[in-house]
Amino acid sequence: MNAELPPDKPASAAEHVRRGGRAGKRSHDRAAFEQPAFRQPRLPFQPTKLISDDQLESIHLASLRVLKEIGVDVLHDEARRIMKAHGADVRDGRERVRFDADMVLDLIAHAPSEFTLHARNPAHNVRLGGDNIIFAQMASAPNCSDADHGRRPGNQMDFRNLVKLGQMHNILHVTGGYPVEPVDLHPSIRHLECLRDFVILTDKVFHAYSLGRERNLDGIEIARIGRGVAMEQFVEEPSLLTIINTNSPLKLDIPMMEGIIQMASHGQAVIVTPFTLAGAMAPVTVAGALVQQNAEALAGIAFAQMVRKGAPVGYGGFTSNVDMKSGAPAFGTPEYMKAQLIGGQLARRYKIPYRTSNVCAANTLDAQAAYESVFSLWGCVQGGGNFIKHAAGWLEGGLTCSYEKTILDIDLLQMIAEFLTPLDFSEEALAIDAIRDVGPGGHFFGTPHTQARYKTAFYPPIVSDWRNFETWVEHGSPTAIQRTNRVWKERLAIYEEPHIDPAIREEIDAFVARRKAEGGAPTDF
Amino acid sequence: MNAELPPDKPASAAEHVRRGGRAGKRSHDRAAFEQPAFRQPRLPFQPTKLISDDQLESIHLASLRVLKEIGVDVLHDEARRIMKAHGADVRDGRERVRFDADMVLDLIAHAPSEFTLHARNPAHNVRLGGDNIIFAQMASAPNCSDADHGRRPGNQMDFRNLVKLGQMHNILHVTGGYPVEPVDLHPSIRHLECLRDFVILTDKVFHAYSLGRERNLDGIEIARIGRGVAMEQFVEEPSLLTIINTNSPLKLDIPMMEGIIQMASHGQAVIVTPFTLAGAMAPVTVAGALVQQNAEALAGIAFAQMVRKGAPVGYGGFTSNVDMKSGAPAFGTPEYMKAQLIGGQLARRYKIPYRTSNVCAANTLDAQAAYESVFSLWGCVQGGGNFIKHAAGWLEGGLTCSYEKTILDIDLLQMIAEFLTPLDFSEEALAIDAIRDVGPGGHFFGTPHTQARYKTAFYPPIVSDWRNFETWVEHGSPTAIQRTNRVWKERLAIYEEPHIDPAIREEIDAFVARRKAEGGAPTDF
Repeated sequence: MNAELPPDKPASAAEHVRRGGRAGKRSHDRAAFEQPAFRQPRLPFQPTKLISDDQLESIHLASLRVLKEIGVDVLHDEARRIMKAHGADVRDGRERVRFDADMVLDLIAHAPSEFTLHARNPAHNVRLGGDNIIFAQMASAPNCSDADHGRRPGNQMDFRNLVKLGQMHNILHVTGGYPVEPVDLHPSIRHLECLRDFVILTDKVFHAYSLGRERNLDGIEIARIGRGVAMEQFVEEPSLLTIINTNSPLKLDIPMMEGIIQMASHGQAVIVTPFTLAGAMAPVTVAGALVQQNAEALAGIAFAQMVRKGAPVGYGGFTSNVDMKSGAPAFGTPEYMKAQLIGGQLARRYKIPYRTSNVCAANTLDAQAAYESVFSLWGCVQGGGNFIKHAAGWLEGGLTCSYEKTILDIDLLQMIAEFLTPLDFSEEALAIDAIRDVGPGGHFFGTPHTQARYKTAFYPPIVSDWRNFETWVEHGSPTAIQRTNRVWKERLAIYEEPHIDPAIREEIDAFVARRKAEGGAPTDF
Repeated sequence: MNAELPPDKPASAAEHVRRGGRAGKRSHDRAAFEQPAFRQPRLPFQPTKLISDDQLESIHLASLRVLKEIGVDVLHDEARRIMKAHGADVRDGRERVRFDADMVLDLIAHAPSEFTLHARNPAHNVRLGGDNIIFAQMASAPNCSDADHGRRPGNQMDFRNLVKLGQMHNILHVTGGYPVEPVDLHPSIRHLECLRDFVILTDKVFHAYSLGRERNLDGIEIARIGRGVAMEQFVEEPSLLTIINTNSPLKLDIPMMEGIIQMASHGQAVIVTPFTLAGAMAPVTVAGALVQQNAEALAGIAFAQMVRKGAPVGYGGFTSNVDMKSGAPAFGTPEYMKAQLIGGQLARRYKIPYRTSNVCAANTLDAQAAYESVFSLWGCVQGGGNFIKHAAGWLEGGLTCSYEKTILDIDLLQMIAEFLTPLDFSEEALAIDAIRDVGPGGHFFGTPHTQARYKTAFYPPIVSDWRNFETWVEHGSPTAIQRTNRVWKERLAIYEEPHIDPAIREEIDAFVARRKAEGGAPTDF
């Protein structure tokens, strides 16, 4: 299909391949539908600077004052001891910890600005940081929904289905957490079942929740077994990630601190993301909410560097506003976009990879869901986001993962990847001869220049219906909901498990069986 | 409502006022609903440079080669004489005209980089160029639609309703043409009826179609009477605009050349916009389509400067791709966004105001309509668009103007204006004291800092439904279609005509009556 194009041509729509892309072609493990190859988009332009360097500095300095003058409450005893040992102001019997600006800045300077996340299939390794973009599937919804059966609490079947959709689509580079919480599994063993599914049903990098020491250690062990490497190597090759949400305002709880300790000490990636809703858990002003976001993020990142200098971390921004009438969180708003862009400026100031999200507040896959999501994606891309969490599936402010929204978002992400793909500026692409051949008043359909390129010239959408009105009406006036509903069913029906070494599979199963027999993990977190 | 805020606070959501904004407060001519004041957004950041200066230069140089080596067909005899007099290569009995690069560049250097468009209500004057943004209502749809009565050919009642909606909403700065074509009016007098409506039903800058000399002259005279100024002053104050679409590829037809001659010689604004669909009227490569767009735009702009040096012009970009299966135009695609950003780079290279558009191919107001539109708006804003045409109402690749989409787009545009509004970085906004007062683990609801700001802190959406799922279901699970349907009817019901000097109204009516009695304009264009 690419035979018409020279091998040095920039990656583009022309790369569309069947059987799931390059990795798929090697491992025979993808079913047949057309999609772009597995490839991380790279930002081809400078991220947008929404505010001046002086304004950025005012946020930076204010957040350092917050850490010094107000401090944060750290609920984890060992974490406070570690902080004290690194010079933080920790007093006996008090949870409040204060940090000097110099100490914080010295520590975060150890964070790598870019690193590789290793998947069990090396073709699915990804770079986090720099101009690289990672799209991660939606995570942590308590409910899921589809147009056939409506909304329901999460369960293992839906969990697995959504994980499979994540695996099948090359534009989703990472499994970002449980797309839906399988509440039919007992919390003591839920993480074991889900982590096993991540390794068996996918071969991409995945996420482990920081909900107590045992769960982090189980995640680390399962990821290590999946990769088939010794712990010594694993510690040097980040392969697992966790998101640390601070308890805004200014509180770092026990599971979160434990997560940082376990993950950082094992060389695994920690993305610290305060959830600072302006007017609720943070000041009502966007600037104030960002001051708090920055203070909390720096505290978490600095702590990770105390645990292990050079620990791979990310700077997460999740500042948005609330509906002041109801307190409900809003997403994809102008305030959210501003916070996304400024969050990126802050992360780049510290040379730390930036995490942001594709989110909306809509209750169904209507125009609202789409415009709030694309506004969010606008902020993600122009803000220089490196790790785009919740990239596919998110509805209802995160309370539902939608099968149809998953497909819609996959299309949006593929469009963004194509938008970011460099154009061809060769003589042939500039097309002076083609313009001459057609001449004034002519038409380019059917010319050799067009014939040689038309099959791969443009991004072929999954969802967009470009038929004219009359034809569209004749076919029942389908909306994006019907189209995405059809697509996820077609695709899920042809899912195939990715290849795994039988010995590794056996080791995973044995580990999970043993840990389940031991009772799993405590549920009193 | 603004009493809580100091007068030097940056413009923001806090500016929301009733009665239609500043202009409305003076003229008592707006009905009561909440909306931001009339104000042009300004881009607070550098537009995105998608391609390098070298790549940009390759398009520039290729387009100059097209003008020199291939040339354009100019169907208008006088236009060819004018071109010849300015040094173009024009041969007797031949329509083909070729241009030297130096001649083109010398001419376009006379175009102003920024100018004011004068409305009959000076509070609605707008700046075109620089970092200023103008949102113009959708134009030229043959059909209109609403959720109650479906899709129908345009007619005068719908034309008037849509023009009224344009007038009522401060975020629509300009009436960009006929939102829907009133095909129940005979073409000979349609322009007279419509132009009169523009002056009577709105007090904003408007557009006249270039469909023959008489229509341009009628538009000029009606705009002049509406402003109540002498022709001498009118010629120095651009008050009317026209869009010149070249006949791509490389053809400039009689009405278009006549439009440039009449409008430029009267000092009115000409926006030259090639409609270069890659793979149809332009090369299938985005780079090639842009070469052709640029050649055609430069030819038209250079011609306007031959007619009158310093004539106010705009550089229009409308390059998109087609569905190669059907030939149908596609919008809001990755290719469209690339062309939008590069079009902006080209316009800025020539220091000419940039026109681009908010467009989609969707047949109904579903997720597709929203994501294609927001992708388009992303390209508009990050591309540094100065004149955003079709900003509200566009569906079906321009074949329908939708009442519901008009409201949806108004909401999107208001969100963008808020996104572009500078943030407050005062000590109070940075909120260290508020963070201190709340402390770790507290909550910002109800604090004095929040109480003093919550009413105006965030953009209040028109369409977005932020209720939780259960409440939303209880209320019938409305989608964006139902919500926008309700809004346009509520708003249209309270439309009031803007104030007009009775003497001016009489003069307009007399002029239109006389011109109608004369038979209007020829219909053999």
